[in-house]
This record gives sequence, C-alpha cells and structure tokens, in this order.
Amino acid sequence: MTIELFWGSGSPFAWRALLALELKKLPYESRLLSFANKEHKTPAMLAMNPRGKVPVLKDGGTVLSESLAIVAYLDRKYPEPPLFGRTAEAAGQIWKQISEALAYLEPPVTTLARAAFAPEPPKADLGAPVAEVKAELKRLDGELKTQKWLAAGEITAADIVLLPTIEILLRVAGKDAAKPLDLGVLPLEKTYPALAAWRDRLRALPAYDKTYPPHWRG
Amino acid sequence: MTIELFWGSGSPFAWRALLALELKKLPYESRLLSFANKEHKTPAMLAMNPRGKVPVLKDGGTVLSESLAIVAYLDRKYPEPPLFGRTAEAAGQIWKQISEALAYLEPPVTTLARAAFAPEPPKADLGAPVAEVKAELKRLDGELKTQKWLAAGEITAADIVLLPTIEILLRVAGKDAAKPLDLGVLPLEKTYPALAAWRDRLRALPAYDKTYPPHWRG
Repeated sequence: MTIELFWGSGSPFAWRALLALELKKLPYESRLLSFANKEHKTPAMLAMNPRGKVPVLKDGGTVLSESLAIVAYLDRKYPEPPLFGRTAEAAGQIWKQISEALAYLEPPVTTLARAAFAPEPPKADLGAPVAEVKAELKRLDGELKTQKWLAAGEITAADIVLLPTIEILLRVAGKDAAKPLDLGVLPLEKTYPALAAWRDRLRALPAYDKTYPPHWRG
Repeated sequence: MTIELFWGSGSPFAWRALLALELKKLPYESRLLSFANKEHKTPAMLAMNPRGKVPVLKDGGTVLSESLAIVAYLDRKYPEPPLFGRTAEAAGQIWKQISEALAYLEPPVTTLARAAFAPEPPKADLGAPVAEVKAELKRLDGELKTQKWLAAGEITAADIVLLPTIEILLRVAGKDAAKPLDLGVLPLEKTYPALAAWRDRLRALPAYDKTYPPHWRG
C-alpha cells in the first residue's frame, strides 16, 4: 500500500509531515500542490480535509489531516525509529517541547510573519510578539547548550515540530519589513549560538534537503 | 511512589490532567494551589515549572508541565485504559481532534473569555472569534450526531482536552457581558443537541464531579 502525502511549499505544517516520513525512511508518493492555483481547495482535497488545509496523509484506507496527528499516526504505525521516545519520561519531555512550541512560539511567529509579508506596514504594535519570541529563543538556546536535540537525547518529533517555525522566523527576520521590529535574531550563530548549532545539525541531514520548501530556494 | 498533581481551580489545562488521572484510576495527591495567593508562583513551584503555570505533575523523579505532555506521559506510563486508542488509526483520529481543538476552538474561546471577564466592555470587534467558535461547534455537533465520543469509539484524550474549553465557553456565554456577542450557544441542548448529549455523558462520570473546578460550584 502506498503512502501519499499532499502538501504545499512553505507550509510549516506540511514540512513536519515530510520530515517524519523521511526520518522514518518510509516510501511515499509526494503530492506537491500549488497554493497559487488553489490545488489544496479542489473537491478531491476538500473531500479528504473539509478545512482545505495541508498536509493530508493517505495510507491505504486511512486519510488524516493535522500535522501533529500525522506524525503521531506514523509513529504508532511504523514504530522504528521512534519519534516520541522509548520511555514514558522521554514521551513526556517530547510532548512538553511540542506543547511549548505550539503555545508560546508559534503564535507570535505567525503574528510577525503576517506583518512582515503583508503589503502594508503593520498598524498594530508588535512589541508583545517580539518579546515573546525573544523569550522563547533564549529558553531554547539555553536548553540546547547542554543537549544536541530538544528532548530524549535523540532527534524526535519535538525537533521536527519546532524546526519549520524557526525557519519561518529566520525568513521573517531577513525581510526589510522586519528591520524596524528589532528582532535581534540575525545572524543566528551570534545571537543564539546553541540554537544555530541545533539547526545546523538538522540542516546536515539528507531529510532536510529533501524536504526544504522548493520555492524558498530561489 | 506517590503521584502529585499541582493545579488551580478553573484552569482548563489543569482540569485535563485531573481528568486523565481519574479516568486511569490512578491514586494521586491533589495539590490545589490558590491563584489569588499566587501559590503557583512560589520558588518551589517555579523550580518545577519556570513559567509559573499549572498543571505540574510529579511522579517519583519525573516532573512535568504542559497538560498535553502530562496526559501523554500518563498514558505511556500507565497504559490501561488507553487514552490514545489501541491502534495507529485511533491515535491519529484522537490527535486530529486534539489538534483541531487547540488550533481552531481554543484561541477564539480564550479571546471571548478575556473579553467577557474583563472589567471594561471589549474595544475590539469580536465578530471573527464568534464566527470561529460557531463553525467549530457546528462541526463538533455534526460529528457527535453519529458517535458517542470524539474519536476511536471510546472516551479518549480528545474528550478530555475538549471538555474544559466547552465548559469555559458555556460560562462565558452565561455572562451579561457576552449578551451583545450573540453567541447563540445557550441553551446548549437546543443549539447543539449532540454536543450537549456528549457533555451530559461526561457529566455523568464520577471523574467529572471529582474534578469540577471547586470555585465554580458557588
């Protein structure tokens, strides 16, 4: 039975699912959809996910949306190598890192990305999301000073979930529109060296290059 | 080894952890902290969770914060009855429901709760969060028309994660400040009868009564 993954270039959520498939070395059919052509909103896609969002995984009779659900499903169905640890304690630490990324880093990064990619300069005061991002980067950098990966001593779902958010943040930080925000993120190896070293370890993996958003290469 | 749970009354996140402990019938020491007296910000609590948030679980040498992490840890450490299903497909559906609750329902409910409990009438237009909440309630009500529980045919972490958010929403809807919002939530058995029946099934469980926020009883 063939695994199919429907995804779009630049979606941090889709990137997580691609990384999970690659790290588990699962064979899959890559179904790259064009957001510009609204290929994620076709009747066939809406039948699989009424929200019209990607990623969507198809594995035999199983159709699944939501990136965390896809990663959790893949890990349960194809246990080796594990992405949620080998012990309850490891699983707890991995889900803690995931929860923290979702609750405290992803929302302010999303706010900043919307502002940086908007055609008009932002009207709202972005001081709060900037401060939240800095606090989380500081925490992550501190934790990564003494550990190679976010949790459990090996690459896990925690790293997979966080990486695309960090990559989006770095793209935002490089935009002219982000200059007045004083994000203090670039160059990452100077501002948050342990976080930069963690990212370099991920960048060195074949899975990173194979799943890097194609339209970002330009 | 004794399990200890540190929590506060009215925290939807803490409520999830309490429900998981009860459904697994695990013996635990309940450490109810007073938010008013800032007992969740004492040096001892900050040593366990620097964010000063609850719930915090202590299980022997394991200290864990973030409600999803606690539920996932407990399920891995004490597998019966399972809260994340007995198959990969069930786990996928459970995590899909959890992801949807976190991504699409919790943020607008939090926005409305802040507005309804604020001392001043809200300045921002709340049309968007009201519409988001209605869309999710409609989806949930539709799904629950043909199933007793959110996923996997049995009570799972999906129900535990969603319930406190629904309970908070119902409290918000009952506030005078929410009247102008035209939430259309009350009475739930008229507006979303399948969702109301699901909630009634949860309310009938001893775990519900044992974990209901004490200060809400007044």
